[in-house]
Amino acid sequence: MRPSGRELSELRPIAIETGVQRNAEGSCLIRVGGTEVLCSASIEDRPPPFLKGSGQGWVTAEYGMLPRATTSRTRREAAAGKQGGRTVEIQRLIGRALRAGVDRRALGERQIVVDCDVLNADGGTRCAAITGGWVALRLAVNKLIAAKQVLGDPILDHVAAVSCGIYAGQAVLDLDYPEDSEAGTDGNFVMTGAGQLIEVQMSAEGAAFSRVQMVQMLDLAEAGVAQLVSAQKAALG
Amino acid sequence: MRPSGRELSELRPIAIETGVQRNAEGSCLIRVGGTEVLCSASIEDRPPPFLKGSGQGWVTAEYGMLPRATTSRTRREAAAGKQGGRTVEIQRLIGRALRAGVDRRALGERQIVVDCDVLNADGGTRCAAITGGWVALRLAVNKLIAAKQVLGDPILDHVAAVSCGIYAGQAVLDLDYPEDSEAGTDGNFVMTGAGQLIEVQMSAEGAAFSRVQMVQMLDLAEAGVAQLVSAQKAALG
Amino acid sequence: MRPSGRELSELRPIAIETGVQRNAEGSCLIRVGGTEVLCSASIEDRPPPFLKGSGQGWVTAEYGMLPRATTSRTRREAAAGKQGGRTVEIQRLIGRALRAGVDRRALGERQIVVDCDVLNADGGTRCAAITGGWVALRLAVNKLIAAKQVLGDPILDHVAAVSCGIYAGQAVLDLDYPEDSEAGTDGNFVMTGAGQLIEVQMSAEGAAFSRVQMVQMLDLAEAGVAQLVSAQKAALG
Amino acid sequence: MRPSGRELSELRPIAIETGVQRNAEGSCLIRVGGTEVLCSASIEDRPPPFLKGSGQGWVTAEYGMLPRATTSRTRREAAAGKQGGRTVEIQRLIGRALRAGVDRRALGERQIVVDCDVLNADGGTRCAAITGGWVALRLAVNKLIAAKQVLGDPILDHVAAVSCGIYAGQAVLDLDYPEDSEAGTDGNFVMTGAGQLIEVQMSAEGAAFSRVQMVQMLDLAEAGVAQLVSAQKAALG
Amino acid sequence: MRPSGRELSELRPIAIETGVQRNAEGSCLIRVGGTEVLCSASIEDRPPPFLKGSGQGWVTAEYGMLPRATTSRTRREAAAGKQGGRTVEIQRLIGRALRAGVDRRALGERQIVVDCDVLNADGGTRCAAITGGWVALRLAVNKLIAAKQVLGDPILDHVAAVSCGIYAGQAVLDLDYPEDSEAGTDGNFVMTGAGQLIEVQMSAEGAAFSRVQMVQMLDLAEAGVAQLVSAQKAALG
Amino acid sequence: MRPSGRELSELRPIAIETGVQRNAEGSCLIRVGGTEVLCSASIEDRPPPFLKGSGQGWVTAEYGMLPRATTSRTRREAAAGKQGGRTVEIQRLIGRALRAGVDRRALGERQIVVDCDVLNADGGTRCAAITGGWVALRLAVNKLIAAKQVLGDPILDHVAAVSCGIYAGQAVLDLDYPEDSEAGTDGNFVMTGAGQLIEVQMSAEGAAFSRVQMVQMLDLAEAGVAQLVSAQKAALG
Repeated sequence: MRPSGRELSELRPIAIETGVQRNAEGSCLIRVGGTEVLCSASIEDRPPPFLKGSGQGWVTAEYGMLPRATTSRTRREAAAGKQGGRTVEIQRLIGRALRAGVDRRALGERQIVVDCDVLNADGGTRCAAITGGWVALRLAVNKLIAAKQVLGDPILDHVAAVSCGIYAGQAVLDLDYPEDSEAGTDGNFVMTGAGQLIEVQMSAEGAAFSRVQMVQMLDLAEAGVAQLVSAQKAALG
Repeated sequence: MRPSGRELSELRPIAIETGVQRNAEGSCLIRVGGTEVLCSASIEDRPPPFLKGSGQGWVTAEYGMLPRATTSRTRREAAAGKQGGRTVEIQRLIGRALRAGVDRRALGERQIVVDCDVLNADGGTRCAAITGGWVALRLAVNKLIAAKQVLGDPILDHVAAVSCGIYAGQAVLDLDYPEDSEAGTDGNFVMTGAGQLIEVQMSAEGAAFSRVQMVQMLDLAEAGVAQLVSAQKAALG
Repeated sequence: MRPSGRELSELRPIAIETGVQRNAEGSCLIRVGGTEVLCSASIEDRPPPFLKGSGQGWVTAEYGMLPRATTSRTRREAAAGKQGGRTVEIQRLIGRALRAGVDRRALGERQIVVDCDVLNADGGTRCAAITGGWVALRLAVNKLIAAKQVLGDPILDHVAAVSCGIYAGQAVLDLDYPEDSEAGTDGNFVMTGAGQLIEVQMSAEGAAFSRVQMVQMLDLAEAGVAQLVSAQKAALG
Repeated sequence: MRPSGRELSELRPIAIETGVQRNAEGSCLIRVGGTEVLCSASIEDRPPPFLKGSGQGWVTAEYGMLPRATTSRTRREAAAGKQGGRTVEIQRLIGRALRAGVDRRALGERQIVVDCDVLNADGGTRCAAITGGWVALRLAVNKLIAAKQVLGDPILDHVAAVSCGIYAGQAVLDLDYPEDSEAGTDGNFVMTGAGQLIEVQMSAEGAAFSRVQMVQMLDLAEAGVAQLVSAQKAALG
Repeated sequence: MRPSGRELSELRPIAIETGVQRNAEGSCLIRVGGTEVLCSASIEDRPPPFLKGSGQGWVTAEYGMLPRATTSRTRREAAAGKQGGRTVEIQRLIGRALRAGVDRRALGERQIVVDCDVLNADGGTRCAAITGGWVALRLAVNKLIAAKQVLGDPILDHVAAVSCGIYAGQAVLDLDYPEDSEAGTDGNFVMTGAGQLIEVQMSAEGAAFSRVQMVQMLDLAEAGVAQLVSAQKAALG
Repeated sequence: MRPSGRELSELRPIAIETGVQRNAEGSCLIRVGGTEVLCSASIEDRPPPFLKGSGQGWVTAEYGMLPRATTSRTRREAAAGKQGGRTVEIQRLIGRALRAGVDRRALGERQIVVDCDVLNADGGTRCAAITGGWVALRLAVNKLIAAKQVLGDPILDHVAAVSCGIYAGQAVLDLDYPEDSEAGTDGNFVMTGAGQLIEVQMSAEGAAFSRVQMVQMLDLAEAGVAQLVSAQKAALG
């Protein structure tokens, strides 16, 4: 019934390759089906100005899309002179999601910037960015630990994300582009390794949705995130 | 237990005054406790370029905050030269929410722009903007109907929104600023008059939250939106 | 003879309501006929950089117009990415006008930012902004005095402004929008409570004007400003 | 008494050299004492969009300052990414002033852009720009007449401008930079060849000024503009 | 003698993988040592406005660098709100270089946009972008030929580029980052498959250079480009 | 054979007038045929941030074009809100060229900004800007020497630039606009007084060019720069 022939609760194949940007403190290329996102984590010695002297650090994210990640060419935001509304919304989400998994006091007065750049887009780029961004973050924090620049581990738990939606009247997991462009409702669930919720965003693109559908999507998401967390663990060896 | 002394499930007082911007096709000033948002709806004869020839119309929204709506002065975005990330995120939400309540084919090839400007901010401005913005939209569409510029009513149902959160460990309805700045989780629920969901956004600002808490917030939101819909009806007379 | 039926030397009804933005150190909503401007004064502890160490303070102003204050919707400047030429010109005028009524040495090394946002526009918005902006400024300075943060009163005198023009060949006071869009000459006069001149701007929009007409407009303005100063006093109680 | 030793009513030496930008339809370099402004007029076949089909033309102006026209280097506006408030204010004034001397219906549906770029600044640059800009405009319109592209002469009269001020308590004509930076009141008067007023801008930079001083400045301006108009005539041969 | 142990005239290993961006009409990932650039070619049905009706097409290029392609994180240009001077200079060079190898009349009234995004930077990114960009262009034009949208082959010859420099007093080929940051002179040579010159840019970063050194660099470049052209051929199969 | 009747190796008449911007530490107006560029050098007490504490100074350049320097009016970059790609490319070239002739350690921790503004454009503006910019720089450095603010002379040698091209199949020196717009190859050569090379830029605008043509252009450039250096010496007296 799904264009790809997947089961309603079936994720696309996942691959996470680490170390793809040699200069970064942490990096990976995450592939979720046809979606590919290059993620890096950069450690900066200073926190953002509003945290100076607070004893706390910060994690923030930036998101971009190569012009030809998409079916037709998307205008380059650097040439347009500003980041579009969709980009701003997504990078704020990634930043909030990753921060929720970090003990900012244990991180100390520094900032980690996670860059997520989409090389190929086939639906679910923001979820892939969160899942891959966390791997890059984990690798960068490992360097801080190895260098004894932090005491204890500032990372509290895994953070991963998956999309769900109501496609052809049924709740499905991990929408690809053909599904996403047809779905009546589109949802993104960010969760911890322990299965707690960090962020839920559900949006009716066509008809409004019901409590029952909301819970069905949540059920799918819980199972999907658990598999993504396993993939994160496998990639980190 | 709440700073304001309200019950966990108690909304703040609501007042909606219509017709406050004489030039607009529809307008109102909505007050939710100390939050005041001026909303207007402007009808434009042409749809956005991507809908030309489609037979469909569009509803979009813009959001702003007067510099001294806030405790300390917020820099004017027009002077800064761009809208901040928070503004972009909020106005996209308002636009999506209002569009979900409109039959865009019945609206015909025109655009309605809903402007929501916060005169005083005390928490929940995006929810007040959606609830008030819908009233302005309703009034503008009434003019189209009265002028026989549309056949049938392009508005499908009421749209209203309320915030919920986990404050001091308990789910509470309609957070004011003192609660919002302390809440562990913050959620916004946009619903129809019939009680269906249009948009759900929940975000852990401190600790992650559970399925149980998610459902508690949803219960509060359903009751809250029902009262807001009543207030919309009363304002429209 | 005037579209509104007013006498040549007749102001529109004036109302000034104070305290409309709770967070501001001073605020008011000024109504001059159909024109409504919300004014606030915000005290900042630091002067602008060019006055650091000078022992002097600064007063500056910003002006904005809600998109639907006007007959047809005006594009939001924050969305356009810059303030238009008219806005820049007006806010510079408001700032100069208010500064002229302040002893900047007595104010000390701080800045007061006066924001003037037009909720409804029906001609004369810059003059209403000056007249209302001065009330907000007065209220904010009263707080400094009450808190003994200044010695003596940094405010030298009232500042108020009114427009005049040549409409249908005759000098008239306080143009509303229908007059303004037809007037051959348009002038703005900013004066002190003592009747001295702070700023005069006269502009031939159609035919050039004569010395005699210039003096007639000045006569009208003197009488008009005197009434506005009385309204300021009444509002301050 | 004046730093330059000039009489109270004495203009600085004026020189206007035409044809300095070969490519322009009209151009001149105007020198007023140490102030030098290069002015050009460019004819564009199409009017601005808002005049399409109106049968009327438009005259507009842009103003710039070379970075080292000033005592210390001024940041290049193209590098800063926007025109400053002062620039915007001045170029709007120049445009209004020149338009007031043109019959826009006789000009027909075309636009003339007058560029005024300050090579050396020593006070009074906006007045020099208007006086020189009019010469460039006159030369460009002469080409339209010679080519029989207009019927009759779209130029109604000369337009020229001079500054006045209250310096050391006395009204003086044509302030240079040392006077301008000390003057209590600063005024700019734009007038026609026939001595009618087009624009008056007076601004108290220190103390407020009186009716009497306003009239003294006007008297000086009338005599000064008459001499500038003679210089325009001489330059045009 | 070279930090990498390479001979003076030795290129780094080259690898070109095609088809890496499924959506693009042509794409490749080019690796030159540690430098990796993802190149895509997008066909647009319309030429740029200045070529409308000319019967000619256009090829243009855009260049970007992922934030963590570099040793320390480079600020994202989309976030900064504009492309830096270096980016602008490089993308203009790539566009000129690729256009020089195309018969724009044979291409017809369409535009091909070549995007070059640096995933990892280790010197020579602009040369890699030209060499890889040409492969993407070739693939896209092949599609036009296969679809019979062009008559004949609009591509005249291969285009490839290599850097040379004076390092430690000697002319060397294909500078990597450690060499580039120390080199006294830095040059980029763009050539055709037939060995003709398209673009030469040589710049003394330390001491000025001589005619003799200029010719030595040219000799190295000729040999280097020949190898790059072979790699292009191999990649295209 | 050349449109101007010049010999293949003949420069246009050169004139350099110094002291044209009284406020600048150094300035000149350079005329090369119909091309006129006003150049100034401004000394700033502080180096750019990246050189703070390095003991070294910096020389940078900015380039602009008056709107009507060109055949048809060019949009003002300050109004467009950014410098175009061509401007950025040129001012980076001027800066690199001038820096190459300066001992930045001898200059000490200060910055000299060289502004080059084109009053009339007839081909070769970037070369004229370099040649004239060096004269302005020389004059400014002379002031530093006279004021004993530097020890020794930070200027190492003359820097001057000339264009060459392949026009109608033959190498020619110093292209004017009619030649430039037809030339198959366009080159710019920046050289020292001693005849060493600082920057070479050659670009095939039509057909690719050969080694032989490259050397012919270099020969012409060497002779041309020698004459420009003589003109610089004459201007400095």
